[in-house]
Amino acid sequence: MFSTITKRLIEIALEEDIGAGDITTDSIISQDEAGIGNIFAKEPLIVAGIDLARYVFFYLDKEINFKPACRDGDKIEKGDSIALLEGSLNTLLKGERTALNFLQRLSGIATLTRNYIKELGNNSTRIVDTRKTTPGWRALEKYAVRIGGAYNHRMGLYDGILIKDNHIACSGGIKKAVDMARKKAHHLLKIEVEVQNFDELHEALSVNADVIMLDNMNIEEIKKALEIIDHRAIVEVSGGIKKENISDLAETGIDIISIGALTHSAKAVDISMDITRHNICI
Amino acid sequence: MFSTITKRLIEIALEEDIGAGDITTDSIISQDEAGIGNIFAKEPLIVAGIDLARYVFFYLDKEINFKPACRDGDKIEKGDSIALLEGSLNTLLKGERTALNFLQRLSGIATLTRNYIKELGNNSTRIVDTRKTTPGWRALEKYAVRIGGAYNHRMGLYDGILIKDNHIACSGGIKKAVDMARKKAHHLLKIEVEVQNFDELHEALSVNADVIMLDNMNIEEIKKALEIIDHRAIVEVSGGIKKENISDLAETGIDIISIGALTHSAKAVDISMDITRHNICI
Amino acid sequence: MFSTITKRLIEIALEEDIGAGDITTDSIISQDEAGIGNIFAKEPLIVAGIDLARYVFFYLDKEINFKPACRDGDKIEKGDSIALLEGSLNTLLKGERTALNFLQRLSGIATLTRNYIKELGNNSTRIVDTRKTTPGWRALEKYAVRIGGAYNHRMGLYDGILIKDNHIACSGGIKKAVDMARKKAHHLLKIEVEVQNFDELHEALSVNADVIMLDNMNIEEIKKALEIIDHRAIVEVSGGIKKENISDLAETGIDIISIGALTHSAKAVDISMDITRHNICI
Amino acid sequence: MFSTITKRLIEIALEEDIGAGDITTDSIISQDEAGIGNIFAKEPLIVAGIDLARYVFFYLDKEINFKPACRDGDKIEKGDSIALLEGSLNTLLKGERTALNFLQRLSGIATLTRNYIKELGNNSTRIVDTRKTTPGWRALEKYAVRIGGAYNHRMGLYDGILIKDNHIACSGGIKKAVDMARKKAHHLLKIEVEVQNFDELHEALSVNADVIMLDNMNIEEIKKALEIIDHRAIVEVSGGIKKENISDLAETGIDIISIGALTHSAKAVDISMDITRHNICI
Amino acid sequence: MFSTITKRLIEIALEEDIGAGDITTDSIISQDEAGIGNIFAKEPLIVAGIDLARYVFFYLDKEINFKPACRDGDKIEKGDSIALLEGSLNTLLKGERTALNFLQRLSGIATLTRNYIKELGNNSTRIVDTRKTTPGWRALEKYAVRIGGAYNHRMGLYDGILIKDNHIACSGGIKKAVDMARKKAHHLLKIEVEVQNFDELHEALSVNADVIMLDNMNIEEIKKALEIIDHRAIVEVSGGIKKENISDLAETGIDIISIGALTHSAKAVDISMDITRHNICI
Amino acid sequence: MFSTITKRLIEIALEEDIGAGDITTDSIISQDEAGIGNIFAKEPLIVAGIDLARYVFFYLDKEINFKPACRDGDKIEKGDSIALLEGSLNTLLKGERTALNFLQRLSGIATLTRNYIKELGNNSTRIVDTRKTTPGWRALEKYAVRIGGAYNHRMGLYDGILIKDNHIACSGGIKKAVDMARKKAHHLLKIEVEVQNFDELHEALSVNADVIMLDNMNIEEIKKALEIIDHRAIVEVSGGIKKENISDLAETGIDIISIGALTHSAKAVDISMDITRHNICI
Repeated sequence: MFSTITKRLIEIALEEDIGAGDITTDSIISQDEAGIGNIFAKEPLIVAGIDLARYVFFYLDKEINFKPACRDGDKIEKGDSIALLEGSLNTLLKGERTALNFLQRLSGIATLTRNYIKELGNNSTRIVDTRKTTPGWRALEKYAVRIGGAYNHRMGLYDGILIKDNHIACSGGIKKAVDMARKKAHHLLKIEVEVQNFDELHEALSVNADVIMLDNMNIEEIKKALEIIDHRAIVEVSGGIKKENISDLAETGIDIISIGALTHSAKAVDISMDITRHNICI
Repeated sequence: MFSTITKRLIEIALEEDIGAGDITTDSIISQDEAGIGNIFAKEPLIVAGIDLARYVFFYLDKEINFKPACRDGDKIEKGDSIALLEGSLNTLLKGERTALNFLQRLSGIATLTRNYIKELGNNSTRIVDTRKTTPGWRALEKYAVRIGGAYNHRMGLYDGILIKDNHIACSGGIKKAVDMARKKAHHLLKIEVEVQNFDELHEALSVNADVIMLDNMNIEEIKKALEIIDHRAIVEVSGGIKKENISDLAETGIDIISIGALTHSAKAVDISMDITRHNICI
Repeated sequence: MFSTITKRLIEIALEEDIGAGDITTDSIISQDEAGIGNIFAKEPLIVAGIDLARYVFFYLDKEINFKPACRDGDKIEKGDSIALLEGSLNTLLKGERTALNFLQRLSGIATLTRNYIKELGNNSTRIVDTRKTTPGWRALEKYAVRIGGAYNHRMGLYDGILIKDNHIACSGGIKKAVDMARKKAHHLLKIEVEVQNFDELHEALSVNADVIMLDNMNIEEIKKALEIIDHRAIVEVSGGIKKENISDLAETGIDIISIGALTHSAKAVDISMDITRHNICI
Repeated sequence: MFSTITKRLIEIALEEDIGAGDITTDSIISQDEAGIGNIFAKEPLIVAGIDLARYVFFYLDKEINFKPACRDGDKIEKGDSIALLEGSLNTLLKGERTALNFLQRLSGIATLTRNYIKELGNNSTRIVDTRKTTPGWRALEKYAVRIGGAYNHRMGLYDGILIKDNHIACSGGIKKAVDMARKKAHHLLKIEVEVQNFDELHEALSVNADVIMLDNMNIEEIKKALEIIDHRAIVEVSGGIKKENISDLAETGIDIISIGALTHSAKAVDISMDITRHNICI
Repeated sequence: MFSTITKRLIEIALEEDIGAGDITTDSIISQDEAGIGNIFAKEPLIVAGIDLARYVFFYLDKEINFKPACRDGDKIEKGDSIALLEGSLNTLLKGERTALNFLQRLSGIATLTRNYIKELGNNSTRIVDTRKTTPGWRALEKYAVRIGGAYNHRMGLYDGILIKDNHIACSGGIKKAVDMARKKAHHLLKIEVEVQNFDELHEALSVNADVIMLDNMNIEEIKKALEIIDHRAIVEVSGGIKKENISDLAETGIDIISIGALTHSAKAVDISMDITRHNICI
Repeated sequence: MFSTITKRLIEIALEEDIGAGDITTDSIISQDEAGIGNIFAKEPLIVAGIDLARYVFFYLDKEINFKPACRDGDKIEKGDSIALLEGSLNTLLKGERTALNFLQRLSGIATLTRNYIKELGNNSTRIVDTRKTTPGWRALEKYAVRIGGAYNHRMGLYDGILIKDNHIACSGGIKKAVDMARKKAHHLLKIEVEVQNFDELHEALSVNADVIMLDNMNIEEIKKALEIIDHRAIVEVSGGIKKENISDLAETGIDIISIGALTHSAKAVDISMDITRHNICI
């Protein structure tokens, strides 16, 4: 289910925390004792990452019984369970922190994303993420963005062509860059061009860019750009987006708003786990 | 210089972003063209992660000339350079985002940490981090915390004994847990016990816990606990610490304040990179 | 330069051949003796993979001096040198077979591709490859196809949307499949639909497929399809293409011809390496 | 069952094709839907690689039910099933191409090998493969050769001593090379020497080479060599073997014919897979 | 159960022995035949490593039924069974040597350790191991030491602070070294100082070293040191310990005796495995 | 130079010792200070593993200057240097233990082997090792055996056919086993058969075994076996060899004596390293 990269991230996450062993737990709790665990929210949040938490425990011990109490994307309240676990007490204690660390971050992104999405109202504008993700976490964070209700931009440098300011500066202009990209790219890829001003916008349109990113323009400039574009390209707005501007931006009719903060500035939400010796069934 | 785990994180970070290739850059910029880059701050910040940025470019291309313009721990202003680069234009464009993503996050943690540290004034209390770090990033984030001026708690489950609420619940009490830990642990390790109330505090003291963590106590309770402990153990305070309480907490004379937010809720700071064709020397 | 996957392929290639050691060479040739090698063609061919051969020797021994005698894409004759090598005789003998095996296969693909390309004449139709590549060799074989003068289709399942017969059968029809794909795909991706007949063609056009693949149609059907499509979509022809039909196909004005045989049925070309003790300079 | 190297090859094969995800299938088919698949021949062929196809799907999803419809080594006709599959529709679509690419190549080698074997008639001469295999595929291609009815030469440089022309040129002659090899090799290894002419043949016999490879000799030379050898060594013939000469070669009484084309020039055979929603049991 | 490092050790152990295949067994025994195996002692010994032997066979074949006949730490006699196995005959033959090699070494260490432990009598002194372990085997050998009845010193350089002679020589003295270590180490770590003479001992005590290692002192010097220390630090004795001195050393009241020979000079004990075709049930 | 497996062993060796960092050294010694080291013998020994020690330091820090003071195979005395090092003091301290652990074990094996070799006198009998090596160390330990003056048996299960007692018991007799092995093995491999008694010896000879291993026979039985064999096969003696019997065994004229103790029961020899701040040149 997870990509190779995500699996490797989970492995190093467990290795960095457990390493040569959990010296506290291994001293106190034998391998044979059974216990139950309850992962629950300590504040209202949108859940994301349940399968990841399951995988963390499963990686340590294939016998852990992990029962989700809700689904990714659910909005839950303080005190609500996210998952109940049953199995080796030793494993539950060992995996707790890593599982929570994954859940807290991904749920934090989903929760923040949901807050942005609400601002769209009924507009069909898409909010999308960017490549400003935590290194190693690209696929996971983009998943959390989708769970929060937004869409993804390209996954990486390999699955979408986006000619940015640095490319333009280095290649001798938009026309030249677009021509070269179109010649080499395969025929299932569109070409997006980032423009800083109206001259660049006209140049991008003149070479039939499929998508145009308006970078750091204010709302008046955006409106003017939309008139110039006149539906000849998909329009993405990027740079310095604040939650309070989203409604106005969406009203302009732009297709896409990309927001780096969804991933680079989300705070962890508070999720905890209670673990006790086994004495009831789950 | 970096641990095996950090090297693997950098590898998957580049793989998740570049994968089968940077189709934009590879279409537009040949492997032979030279360029220069300038990584600079777009807001005031404490720098952390310069060697990591260097390693990212070095991983892609051993010929990149990377010259730091400041040192980790420096406070720099908007517009100040962090590093100047010279080498293959293709590589500079390919590595830009991953290098910035590392720098933005680590500098964000260092900057936040510095803000907390300022609140300590002249008190000798140590602010330390927790294990609530981004999975895969433990060593890096703990490094950024040190750069910000705080100290580290244990690195993981393998290099420190901390008997927490779940351990106590599962093992049949503090005394039993401490006895077992002391029997099995090697002789260079101290034993820390988390206590929720004064009964637990007394029990922990009775078995000579080396360190006591006061969990989620208010300042009056902390003061009372300190009197009871009377220098028989190192005292750590944890849970729900806010920046505005740090000064008061430090005044009580506690040894250590641990703060998860340093790593789990730091926002990225804004760092950017300009790349141009080579025409000047750096 | 090479992707992570290609590097791993090279590693396992050397490991499967050398394993615990080259027991012949290690018995006969000490680590200290120097020698020279000449990699040369034993039949006319288009060269592809010189950097790969260099990497193979470099992987074994960073001191090997590898001088290409031509460039990837060059047409060379029987007896022409591809590269001259100087360095440890032991290493030259150890790396010979693996380097040649890479060169022979990639040059075989480039040579075959060039033969197909010649048939296009002045038509602007693109010949592209498919995903019918040798497992583990995707990036390398697609590179050889480009060296031969053709273009690439998508690299894998992750960078292009192609709704094939099995997808249509499983999803309940073209319209439904296209709608779902358009909803979930990011905005830089076009959508291609494979059609087996004119009903499917009409359905694909009705939902604005960006690219249409005509599967296993004869030339009359293709001409009819082009009339129906009338430039509303990019047109790809696939299935059972033979070299002798390419000229006629290209004359119809289709945009793309995809040919699996470029990679799945290319024969190795004959390349050899002479190795002798060092007595002259290269 | 598979060696470490083969497992790694399968992993990179899936990674290069699926990478960050199958964006077509994941958009259209949920993880919950069940389906059936039929892998079948589109031309007459000798099957090789069924377990590999099973492993590909198993790697993606341990719940796939894979039922072989024949066995490796079977000769099947156009339309005959190779395997029936039942399980997640999403997985069947994702694994299809990689599984087929493995099967097509290995069955191609087995089919070609069988054609060569037929030419042997009742002669006891062994046809064997060489080290001219596709890098990364050594064990798999040598398996397919055995399935086709031929034998293997050594697996790599580590499990057999073969003193070739380059070794002789570099070491100062056959006698010296054989003496050194015999001194260092362990006592379970025979020593083979490649000879280009009768002088070399006499020298090889004089040092009691266990096996002699006659390189690029015509049939008259081979007959003369056999007389000279007079059963004092095993005789292998190599270089420029064509299918139409095999019968004559075998009649001479040589022990072994080695043929690089079995692996370096086999074409893929045509194998396809139909996938549909689940509505019948397999 | 095993750490990542131990798992990797087991993988390379199987790879170095089996590599491309067990050519003897694979020629003689098909994959389908069932058999039973008996792992047994050929001399009296303390068993250690049963789970490791199980894992070796499990790694090769998940269907092997492995029944321990005793537990790690048991003292068994010549002829006693350690484990009975049932399953694929081919797998039993393939895994035999690697499983025995692990068992023989670990049981050798446990047996040797037990012999040292006996010398302690009723003294509460702990015998501990050192970092003089077989590279790659740290966790396993330290486990065998515990099984033999002794304790572990720190696992590695990462989980304990021990300032040795070379550190003192390089840092400018004990006081400076201890101050720096105390400043940087986290608060759960004690600080140990190695001293060669009484001057160093006094200096170590003056900076409140938590643990003092008396290096290569004779018993009179040790007694004198104990008087000086007067319970202000934990006392470890190291260097040139012989089994016949342990009783006298322990009588002095030192806390810890560290002995490198437990791991660096243990001989393998003799353990063998009988394998036969299946004809009885285990 | 080292095989993939050996490189992985070195990596895990450093990882298990250093892990998240050398907390002692990193606290006390900055990355910038230079120092020198001297690796020297503390008892007479045969050196083996110098390149390995070099690689350990090189792995940590490519700038370390490592100058061997002798060569593998040299007999050196107490106090003699093995290597001098110059470079980062921090690195020298970090790599010390791992480098010494490798050297101590390999030199221990070489030293023990040399002692056995001396017993051979002028006899041409070869002493060889077995597969009873430390898991993960096969190639290294077999190298140390060669350095000690003995020869290697096969490296693993993949490069030599040895039909042992368990194979005979499982396959239905020597004749059947040899026939099957000969049919499947490639033509560069000899076939060895282990025999326990004279009946088995006669059976092995009747099927032309190339090599016969006399298992656990006494010297009279060995002499009788040699008469029976009468030079029709290479003769190996194995099982329960003691150093004091080697001379008598060699006198019988057997070809090979295999001794597991060379690797499974060698003790580490005593090697140490002095490290000081840089003040002289090496």
